[in-house]
Amino acid sequence: MSRTYNFSAGPAVLPEAVLRQAQESMLDWQGCGLSVMEMSHRGKEFVAIAAQAEQDLRDLLGVPESHRILFLQGGATGQFAAIPMNLLAGRARADYVDTGNWSKKAIAEAKSYCAVNVVATGGSGDPMSIPPQANWSLDPEAAYLHYTPNETISGVEFHWVPQVDEVPLVADMSSTLLSRPIDVDRFGLIYAGAQKNIGPAGLTVVIVREDLIGKAMPATPAVWDYRRQGEADSMLNTPPTYAWYIAGLVFQWLKRQGGLEAIAQVNKRKADKLYAAIDGSDFYRNPVHPTCRSWMNVPFVMAEEKLDERFLTDAKAAGLIALKGHRSVGGMRASLYNAMPEAGVDALIAFMRDFEQRYG
Amino acid sequence: MSRTYNFSAGPAVLPEAVLRQAQESMLDWQGCGLSVMEMSHRGKEFVAIAAQAEQDLRDLLGVPESHRILFLQGGATGQFAAIPMNLLAGRARADYVDTGNWSKKAIAEAKSYCAVNVVATGGSGDPMSIPPQANWSLDPEAAYLHYTPNETISGVEFHWVPQVDEVPLVADMSSTLLSRPIDVDRFGLIYAGAQKNIGPAGLTVVIVREDLIGKAMPATPAVWDYRRQGEADSMLNTPPTYAWYIAGLVFQWLKRQGGLEAIAQVNKRKADKLYAAIDGSDFYRNPVHPTCRSWMNVPFVMAEEKLDERFLTDAKAAGLIALKGHRSVGGMRASLYNAMPEAGVDALIAFMRDFEQRYG
Repeated sequence: MSRTYNFSAGPAVLPEAVLRQAQESMLDWQGCGLSVMEMSHRGKEFVAIAAQAEQDLRDLLGVPESHRILFLQGGATGQFAAIPMNLLAGRARADYVDTGNWSKKAIAEAKSYCAVNVVATGGSGDPMSIPPQANWSLDPEAAYLHYTPNETISGVEFHWVPQVDEVPLVADMSSTLLSRPIDVDRFGLIYAGAQKNIGPAGLTVVIVREDLIGKAMPATPAVWDYRRQGEADSMLNTPPTYAWYIAGLVFQWLKRQGGLEAIAQVNKRKADKLYAAIDGSDFYRNPVHPTCRSWMNVPFVMAEEKLDERFLTDAKAAGLIALKGHRSVGGMRASLYNAMPEAGVDALIAFMRDFEQRYG
Repeated sequence: MSRTYNFSAGPAVLPEAVLRQAQESMLDWQGCGLSVMEMSHRGKEFVAIAAQAEQDLRDLLGVPESHRILFLQGGATGQFAAIPMNLLAGRARADYVDTGNWSKKAIAEAKSYCAVNVVATGGSGDPMSIPPQANWSLDPEAAYLHYTPNETISGVEFHWVPQVDEVPLVADMSSTLLSRPIDVDRFGLIYAGAQKNIGPAGLTVVIVREDLIGKAMPATPAVWDYRRQGEADSMLNTPPTYAWYIAGLVFQWLKRQGGLEAIAQVNKRKADKLYAAIDGSDFYRNPVHPTCRSWMNVPFVMAEEKLDERFLTDAKAAGLIALKGHRSVGGMRASLYNAMPEAGVDALIAFMRDFEQRYG
């Protein structure tokens, strides 16, 4: 068996140590005689697994007591609907920052529930950039301000947190949560699909300030009603138990790596290295302004687009997989989530140099 | 390692052969150098896994071309909301049969979206029974008729399919789908949480007649809009890829068992055996009328309730686990899904006889 370096944007690479634990316990978790996949979510074994995962996530992110953690289903796209349903609280308008593809999807879905004020549009142009907050047209009557700290497709990332006064700040952190420390206290709500830095697809983490809970509109589906799920410890209905378990193993792995301060250093180093290799070449190019380049998703194009397929085929033969850019933008994209070893980035850079020598 | 006999109502036992395949492929699926859990849902490997699972399910159930199969998130409880959202199609009322706990939950959720006409109430009394359709008060203007073919908690099961004319028949088959052949053509929509006979929790199967698709109300979340998910082959957003993969392995296992005709014979034999043991004793008792006893979930009580804890403790020591009845009804419950080997039922019956001799 030979593991590849998997640069997929999500579902994405998981720590090999986590996969080995999952493999070992597949038929018999800790001598209980069954797989975690087969456990009743009401049994004391799974309840303990779930509670430990929640506590570890709380520890890693420093989630204050003022915020509740929910483990839900439906992905970030499900939350695009659930957020207005839960947070409008009788208001008719919400503010959204548009910095790319995922912002636009969140905006499109929100429009089914309220009037959307797009406070600023960025993530386009050459190089792509994020408009400074000074230029945003915020609505003081907005129920919340939504933004996308990291745009997975274009690789445009905020390296700052928007300033808000009373309006709750809502962030789709699907592709950046757990990549570095954050100050949870500044956010009204943080949400993330699990399939990047958390665990398997099918689990959605929502971290929401308690005072925002309990105001869901009547048509909110029960499984997405933050109050009802909060009161039921995210088990109003059967949760995605196995994904939750794997996420818990990832959290423990992250603690063993030294937590978010430590992983942030590694992540920054991995990203810096790859951007330096791209910038140091006339052959490769990243289209994002250096002030808002993503640590997690690094898109790049080559001088000649017709080489793309050759690049991807040769990379795969070298054990470097899932480097194809999103179908909406083309080119290449290397996703460098927590579980991507630094050796994988080194191997990619070496491959890119070699490829340039052969075809540049 | 010693596997137990796991009688959990869900998440429930999975075929050991499936768990072994999952274990073997955990770090490297078919020489690709990564886990299925790490695969992009857009990559050709996962697209093939997903399509094969869908085809196998279609084969097993004989799903006609008139019906689409969707692989969604949110559980049956999510569908309690999604069904009225998609199927009301401008109508204001829907018919629901109430035969127990899960019927009641479906009804409570539907009331957020329409007027609910409860056509009949059953699943109570002693013995519990299902009112014959002759006594139902059907509404010809109903958008659909919803019922729960198997009530997982009380073990009340329909052994017949309601007759409908124009009104689409909608069935929550969470705890019965794949336990025997069904005539899909008689249903407008069938849905099921995966965590009984299909696979891991976190996956929801919806089988819906094409002509019912495309009429969702504007506030329907995109991830539950049958038209949008259908057009996207259930990949409008990232699906629960690993659960989908495991479900596919379960479908292949079912085919190897001889399909639904063959598994139905085993299931009937397992259930008959256990009911015979219960009925043949003055110590154990099942509270459901013999005409509507579930093949999948067999609740039973003992003459003396204070023996429950002793029963559960001794059973666990004998490797028979998760026999505790639902917290709302107490007593015991043995769930006999497809993956419960007949030897497990034999072991349970032997244990029950022994327990009765010791404490009866």
